[in-house]
Amino acid sequence: MASSWLQIPKESPFSLANIPFGIISTAASSTPRPAIAIGDYALDLFAFASGGGFSQLPSFQEHIDVFAQQTLNDFASLGRPVHRQVREYLQAIFKEDTPYPTLLKSNEDLKKSALVPRKEAINHVPMRIGDYTDFYSGLNHAYNVGVLFRGPDNALQPNYKHLPVGYHGRASSVIVSGQPVRRPNGQILANPAATPKEPTFSPCKKLDIELELAVFVGKGNKLGEPIPIDQAEDHLFGVVLMNDWSARDIQAWEYVPLGPFNAKNFATTITPWVVLMDALEPFRTQGLEPGRPLLPYLQEKNKENVYDISLEVSLKANGKDNKIAETNSKNLLFSFPQMLAHHSITGCNMNTGDLLGSGTISGDKPGTLGSFLENTNGGKNPIKLADGSERVFLQDGDEVVLRGASGKEGGYVGFGDCAAIITPAPKF
Amino acid sequence: MASSWLQIPKESPFSLANIPFGIISTAASSTPRPAIAIGDYALDLFAFASGGGFSQLPSFQEHIDVFAQQTLNDFASLGRPVHRQVREYLQAIFKEDTPYPTLLKSNEDLKKSALVPRKEAINHVPMRIGDYTDFYSGLNHAYNVGVLFRGPDNALQPNYKHLPVGYHGRASSVIVSGQPVRRPNGQILANPAATPKEPTFSPCKKLDIELELAVFVGKGNKLGEPIPIDQAEDHLFGVVLMNDWSARDIQAWEYVPLGPFNAKNFATTITPWVVLMDALEPFRTQGLEPGRPLLPYLQEKNKENVYDISLEVSLKANGKDNKIAETNSKNLLFSFPQMLAHHSITGCNMNTGDLLGSGTISGDKPGTLGSFLENTNGGKNPIKLADGSERVFLQDGDEVVLRGASGKEGGYVGFGDCAAIITPAPKF
Repeated sequence: MASSWLQIPKESPFSLANIPFGIISTAASSTPRPAIAIGDYALDLFAFASGGGFSQLPSFQEHIDVFAQQTLNDFASLGRPVHRQVREYLQAIFKEDTPYPTLLKSNEDLKKSALVPRKEAINHVPMRIGDYTDFYSGLNHAYNVGVLFRGPDNALQPNYKHLPVGYHGRASSVIVSGQPVRRPNGQILANPAATPKEPTFSPCKKLDIELELAVFVGKGNKLGEPIPIDQAEDHLFGVVLMNDWSARDIQAWEYVPLGPFNAKNFATTITPWVVLMDALEPFRTQGLEPGRPLLPYLQEKNKENVYDISLEVSLKANGKDNKIAETNSKNLLFSFPQMLAHHSITGCNMNTGDLLGSGTISGDKPGTLGSFLENTNGGKNPIKLADGSERVFLQDGDEVVLRGASGKEGGYVGFGDCAAIITPAPKF
Repeated sequence: MASSWLQIPKESPFSLANIPFGIISTAASSTPRPAIAIGDYALDLFAFASGGGFSQLPSFQEHIDVFAQQTLNDFASLGRPVHRQVREYLQAIFKEDTPYPTLLKSNEDLKKSALVPRKEAINHVPMRIGDYTDFYSGLNHAYNVGVLFRGPDNALQPNYKHLPVGYHGRASSVIVSGQPVRRPNGQILANPAATPKEPTFSPCKKLDIELELAVFVGKGNKLGEPIPIDQAEDHLFGVVLMNDWSARDIQAWEYVPLGPFNAKNFATTITPWVVLMDALEPFRTQGLEPGRPLLPYLQEKNKENVYDISLEVSLKANGKDNKIAETNSKNLLFSFPQMLAHHSITGCNMNTGDLLGSGTISGDKPGTLGSFLENTNGGKNPIKLADGSERVFLQDGDEVVLRGASGKEGGYVGFGDCAAIITPAPKF
C-alpha cells in the first residue's frame, strides 16, 4: 500500500486503499455536497472540482456537475468504469509521490478550502433512495430465528436455499449514523397464550438491532428487462453498514401473513460513507453454500462472490462500551449480484440509489450473533454489561455502534461507525 | 349539479362535480405538466396559469409554480384547504354562469391552447412516489383467500380485525393506465406435494389482478412524530383506482416468511387522474365493522369513513368485452385515515406522493370478487368468456380494465379506465 502525504492514522477505516464517497455539509456551508473520506478528513469534491482538482482527468470533465449535486445519485449513475477511474485518480492525488502535486498536495489554498476535518463535517444520507429492499441471506441468522420460532426441524423454509428471500422495506426512514432512533409505539400481544388474542398499545419492549451490509444500485434497468446475473456487478455502486432496527414484539403480532411492516418502518441506520465495489474487490471470498445447484439465473461464474469484512456490534450503556458480537460478512448464502438478478428477474425496474440489504449477518456460535433476538435466545438469556446491568433488548439511552473493515492496519477498507442512541417513545 | 358551458357527456366520469388532477404531455409539447380532466378534455394547468387563468384567485398566486412542475407533488404538499380552493375555483371557471367568463369561456385563444382533447393527451404517473404501501383491508378478499389457503376456521389471522395489515410494496414499478404489463418469469413450485420441494423456472402461469383503491399522501409528517387519527384526513390528497398485478404461483413459493416480493414487484397500474378527497366527500358511507372496539389510536369520530364507489372488472379477450365482477369500495374494514394513522404510529415518516393501497376489494358473493384467485376458486372453476374461451388466470393478449365511479349520470365522480394489456414474458 502506497503512503500518503496526508497523515492518515494507521487504524483509520479510511486509508488510501478505500476512498469512500458520501455527502457532507459544514457550519460554514450548509448545502450538502459530495465528498470522500480519507483519514481524519473529508475532501469536499465540490470545492475540489471548483478549484480545478479534476483538471488532469480530462475524460471526466463532461460529468463534473455530478459533484455539484446534493446526493451521489448522478455520480453513481455513471457506471463502474467511471467510479473506478475517479477513485484511482483521487488515490493518485493523495499519494506521497503524486503525479499531480500542484493540484492539492502543494496547493495550500485548496487544501484549506476543500480538506475538511471529518469531525467538523455533518453527514447526510448519501443517496436519494427510491426503493429499499431487505433480503434475508444471512443463513445462520435465518436458521437461528427459525429455531426460536419453529424448532430445529423446520427452521429454514423450503424456499430458503433456492432464492434470496427478501421483502420491500421503507425507504423514507433510512437515516444516517448519528441520528437518534425513537422507540416506536405499537400493537403488542402481551399474552400470546390467552384466548381470544387481545393486543395492547404500548412502547416497544423488545427493541432489537440487525447487523447488515447493504449495497446501493448504480445503474438501473428498464421495466420488463431483467438484469442477467453476469451483468449484475456492473449495476452496483457501493456498500454501507446497516442497522435494520426491529421491534420484535410489534413484529410477532403483525407479520402474518404479509411480513414485517411497522416493526421495521420507524428507522434503518446506514453509515454515511459508501465504499465502492472496487475498493472491496481485493477482499472477495466464498460465502456459505446452498448445497445444491441453483437455477441458472442465479449461477455466478466467480465463486468468490461475497466479501471478507470483519464486523462487530458494540453497545454503549451508561458510558461504558460492551462488545456484543464479532462476525464476518462472508456468512451470507447469496451475493449482492444474486440479489439483484433475483429482484429484477420479474422485470422489476431498479433505479440508481435503490438500497439492497443483505439480511442479518450472524456466525454460528455464541458471540457472533447479529441480533439481540439470537444473542439472548429470544429474550431468555440476558447479556451482562460492563456497568453491572443486563440486557435482553435495548433500553432508552443505549447507543448501538456497528463497525466493519477489511484489510490490515495502515490499509483498512472500512465503513466507520453505524451508530444511534435510543430515545424514549412518544407519550400517548 | 350546475351545468357547464363545456359540453360534458352525461356518462363521463369527469363531470363538473369531479375535477381530478393528473399529469399530461402532448405531441406538440412533450414536457409533462399538471392538468385536470373534464368531460372529454384535459385543461392544461400550465397553459391556463400562464394565460392568467388564476388571476381571480389572488391567494393562490404565491403557489402558481406548482403547475410548472412535472408531478403533482408540489400542489399536493400545499394541503387540503388549498386543494379545495383550487378545485372550487376551477368548477366556477367551467360553470355555465361562471363569474369569470373572460378567463376561459369567452377566451378563444386560451381555450385553443389550454383545452386539450383527452384522446390527444399522454398520461403520466401523476406523483413522484417515494414509498408505496399496500394494505389488506378488503375483509371479504382476505377471508376468501384465507379459506382457500387455510380453510374457513382459520381464514382470518388473529391480528386481522385489530389493525390494518399491510406491507411495503415496490414504488418504481407503479405505472399508469395504458402501459402494457409484461408477464414475469420466476421460481414456481410446479408440484407442491413432491419431496423435496424443487422449484422450476418459468413464466408465471397464474397471473392475476387485484382490484383496489389507493390514496396519495398530501402533507407528510416528520420521522418520530405519528399522525393522530383525527388529523389523518388533512394529510390525504386524492384517490386512484389500482390494479395490483399478482403472480400467484411465484407468490405461493416465495412468500414465507417475509411476505409477497417478486410476485408483486413487476407492475402496479393506477389511473392517471387523482380524484381529490373533497370530490369524494358526498359519497362517504359506513364500511365493514370489526365487531369489537379498536385501540384508541385507530378510532375515528365519523363512522362514515369509506366511500360508496361502484367498481367493476372487465376483461377484453379477442376483441370481446367480458364483465368479470361488480362490487363497491365500501367493502373495506379500515379507512384511509386509519391506514395512515397505523402506518405512522411507529413514527414512520410519510412523504408527499406516498401511495397507500386499500387491499383487494371484493363483495361477499359470486360476481363481486376482485381477483381471479377468488373468482375461479383458486383456479379450479374457469370463467367462460364471450369469445367461447375460458380463463382461470390471465393469458397473453388479455386486456384488463378496472372502472369505478360515484354519483349519478350527469354528475359522476369517476376514475376513468385502469387498463393494461398482458404481453409475453422475456425468453430465457
